Amino acid sequence: MLGNFEYHNPTKLYFGDESLQYLNTELKNYGKNVMLVYGGGSIKKSGLYDEIVDILKENGKNIVEDSGVMPNPTVEKLNEGVKIARENNVDLILAVGGGSVCDYSKAVSVSVHCNDDPWEKYYIRFEEPDCKIVPVGCVLTMAGTGSEMNGGAVITNHETKQKIGHVFGDNVMPKFSILNPKYTMTLPKYQMCAGIYDIMNHICEQYFSGEDDNTSDYISEALMKSVIAASRIAKDDPNNYEARSNIMWTAAWALNTLVAKGKSTDWMVHMLGQSVGAYTDATHGMTLAAVSLPYYRYIMKYGLPKFKRFAVNVWDVDPAGKSDEQIAAEGLNAMESWMNELGLVMNISDLGATADMIEGIADGTIIMTGGYKVLDRDEIIGILKASLK
Amino acid sequence: MLGNFEYHNPTKLYFGDESLQYLNTELKNYGKNVMLVYGGGSIKKSGLYDEIVDILKENGKNIVEDSGVMPNPTVEKLNEGVKIARENNVDLILAVGGGSVCDYSKAVSVSVHCNDDPWEKYYIRFEEPDCKIVPVGCVLTMAGTGSEMNGGAVITNHETKQKIGHVFGDNVMPKFSILNPKYTMTLPKYQMCAGIYDIMNHICEQYFSGEDDNTSDYISEALMKSVIAASRIAKDDPNNYEARSNIMWTAAWALNTLVAKGKSTDWMVHMLGQSVGAYTDATHGMTLAAVSLPYYRYIMKYGLPKFKRFAVNVWDVDPAGKSDEQIAAEGLNAMESWMNELGLVMNISDLGATADMIEGIADGTIIMTGGYKVLDRDEIIGILKASLK
Repeated sequence: MLGNFEYHNPTKLYFGDESLQYLNTELKNYGKNVMLVYGGGSIKKSGLYDEIVDILKENGKNIVEDSGVMPNPTVEKLNEGVKIARENNVDLILAVGGGSVCDYSKAVSVSVHCNDDPWEKYYIRFEEPDCKIVPVGCVLTMAGTGSEMNGGAVITNHETKQKIGHVFGDNVMPKFSILNPKYTMTLPKYQMCAGIYDIMNHICEQYFSGEDDNTSDYISEALMKSVIAASRIAKDDPNNYEARSNIMWTAAWALNTLVAKGKSTDWMVHMLGQSVGAYTDATHGMTLAAVSLPYYRYIMKYGLPKFKRFAVNVWDVDPAGKSDEQIAAEGLNAMESWMNELGLVMNISDLGATADMIEGIADGTIIMTGGYKVLDRDEIIGILKASLK
Repeated sequence: MLGNFEYHNPTKLYFGDESLQYLNTELKNYGKNVMLVYGGGSIKKSGLYDEIVDILKENGKNIVEDSGVMPNPTVEKLNEGVKIARENNVDLILAVGGGSVCDYSKAVSVSVHCNDDPWEKYYIRFEEPDCKIVPVGCVLTMAGTGSEMNGGAVITNHETKQKIGHVFGDNVMPKFSILNPKYTMTLPKYQMCAGIYDIMNHICEQYFSGEDDNTSDYISEALMKSVIAASRIAKDDPNNYEARSNIMWTAAWALNTLVAKGKSTDWMVHMLGQSVGAYTDATHGMTLAAVSLPYYRYIMKYGLPKFKRFAVNVWDVDPAGKSDEQIAAEGLNAMESWMNELGLVMNISDLGATADMIEGIADGTIIMTGGYKVLDRDEIIGILKASLK
C-alpha cells in the first residue's frame, strides 16, 4: 500500500550537452557573493573551472573559492567551509563536482547561519535546520549519488570513525542542477563503475523493502534495467553519449525520493559500506559493491518473493521448473556476473579492510529497521566476514 | 538520446487517506479570497464539500463559489469563471474534482489578470501567459488526466467544434494537490475505467515516439505495467484501496513531463479523440479508447521495433519463433483484450459519432508531427472510418 506521504522536489534540472548556458539564467536569482566549491582540481584540467569562472564574472559575481573537497568530506573540512561562507557573507553555494562536492555544499548550507556545532546537531542528534539555509546550485561532473536532486549530505568523522548521512528536506535540496553527461566522460573507468553501482544500490535499498507490489517497485525495476543496459554500453565505450546520458538521468531519479514512496526502505548496504568507508576511506560505490552480495544472500530468505521478482523482472531469469529459492539465487548470480563485468571490487579486503577491523566496522554500522531482516551484531559480523577475500 | 531539456515540477503532492488535513497547512500561504471550483455536485453528496468548506472557514477564508464545471469545460464557462474571479479579487483557486475541474481552474488562473480573450490568446494563438497568474490548488476526486501535477488545460468550443489543450509551463502547474484515493471510490465504474485508459494512453503517447531506447521508455513500461496490474484488481473490486492508490499515483506520473524527457512524443490519439469529443461531448478516456486500436494498428509498421518491445516488455508476449510483425500485433491484441476486460468503448459509433461526422471530425483533428507517421487527411479519415462500429 502506498500509505500517506508528501512528494515535493523543487530542484530545477538543466540536462544535456548545452546545459551550462542556463547557469546565466539561474545566477540572476541570487546575490553577489558566490562560494565556488570543488574538489581536487580535475575541473581545472578539463577547462570547466575557467568556463564557470567566466560565467560568474560576466554576471558580476564576487567569487569566493572553497576547493579541496575530498571524496569523503570530513568534519574538519565542513567547519572550514562554514567559516569561509560566514566570513564572505555568501549568497549562493555553487558546487562543481560529484556527489561529495554536492553533499558537502549542502552540509555547509545548513550550518552557515547555525550557532550549534554542525556535526553534533545534524549527524549525532539528527536535528533539522532551524536557521536560514544558503541556497545551493550544482554543476555535476559525476553520476551516481543523486545528490544533485535530493537533500542528502554524508559527512565523515575520522576521529570517531563514523561516516554518517543526513537526509534533509526539500528546503535543502539544490535549487538547480546542471547535468551535462559530457562532464562525466573525463572520469576514470573505476570511478564511473563505482558510480553505476551506487545508482544500482540506491534503487535496491528502496526496492528490497515493504510487502506490497506497488508503483514504486515497477519504477525501480525500470530504473535498474535502464542503468544495467546503459552500463553495458558505457563499460566498453565510455564516450558513448547516449549511454552516459541515460546513466546520469537514472542516477537523479534513483535517489530523489520518488521510488521510496510507499516503501519502508532498507539502507543496510549503505550502513555497512559507510562503516567500511570510515575505516578505509575507499570509494563509496566500491564499499557498497564489496558488501552487497554477502548481505543480499543472507537476507534473501526473509524477502524471498521480492528476490524472485527481482530475478525475473530485472535479470530475465526463466522461472520455469525452478523453486523460488533457485530463481531468487539465480537473480543474485546474474547481478554478480554484471558486477564482475564492470570490474567492481567484490570484497572489502581489496579496499584495505582487514580481519582485525571487523569488530570496529560492525560497531560503526548503524542498524536500520526498514528491510526484510533487522540485523543483530552477530549477523553484521557474519556478513562482514563473508565480505573478506 | 535524451537530448537537451529542463525538468522542473514544483507541485507539492499530499498523498493518502489522511491527506486532506494538509489543506490547512497550504491555506496559510495564500490570501483571504478563495474561489472554490467544482463540478456537478457529487462532492456535496460525498460530504467532501462540507469538509472543505469547514477547513476554509476555520482558516478565515472568504469563499467564492464557482460550480457546475462540466466534463468538457467550455469557453463560455471559462469566461464566466474569469468574471467571478475578477469581481472577487481571488487569491487562490481551489479545484475540487477531476481533471476537468483542474484544467478549467488553470485556464481561469492565466486569464483573470489578462486583457486578451483567453480562447483566442491561449487556444488559437497558443501564446504564453504574460500576466499575473492566480495560484491553483487541487483536491482530486478522479484519477486519470494527470492535471493535478502538470500545466495542461483543455477547453472546448462548441461553436467552432474544437476541443483544444494548452500545456502551460511550470508556473501554471498547481502549487499543491491533495490525492486521497478514497475520494475516487465514489466514481461509477465507467468513469473509473475511462480514467484508467486515459492514464494508459498518456503513457503510450509519449512511449510511441523517438528512436532510442532511453530511461523514459523503461519508466513508461513500468507505469503501464503498474496501471494494468492495478486496473485488473480495481475492475472487480473498486474499493480495493491499494489498487486505487496505485492507479492514482500512476496517473500523476504518467503526465507530469517525466516520461516525455528525451522523447518527441506523439499525441495523435488525443488529437483524434478530442475531435471526436468536440462532436459527441463523450467522456474523454472513452474517445481515446474508441480510436486507439485503429490508429495503432495503422502506424504499427512505421514504429515496428517499439511495438515489438511493447508486446514483450508490457504484455509478456513470448517472441520465440515469431516475426516482428506477429509479435507487435500480438501486443496490440493483448491490449485489446485488456480494454475489453475493462469494458471500454471500442468504437466511436457507441459514443454517438456517425458516418456523416467523419469529415468534420477529420477537419477538427490537429495533426502532430512527433510520432512514427505524420498522418495526412486521407489517413485520418481511414482511421476514423475504421473506428466506426
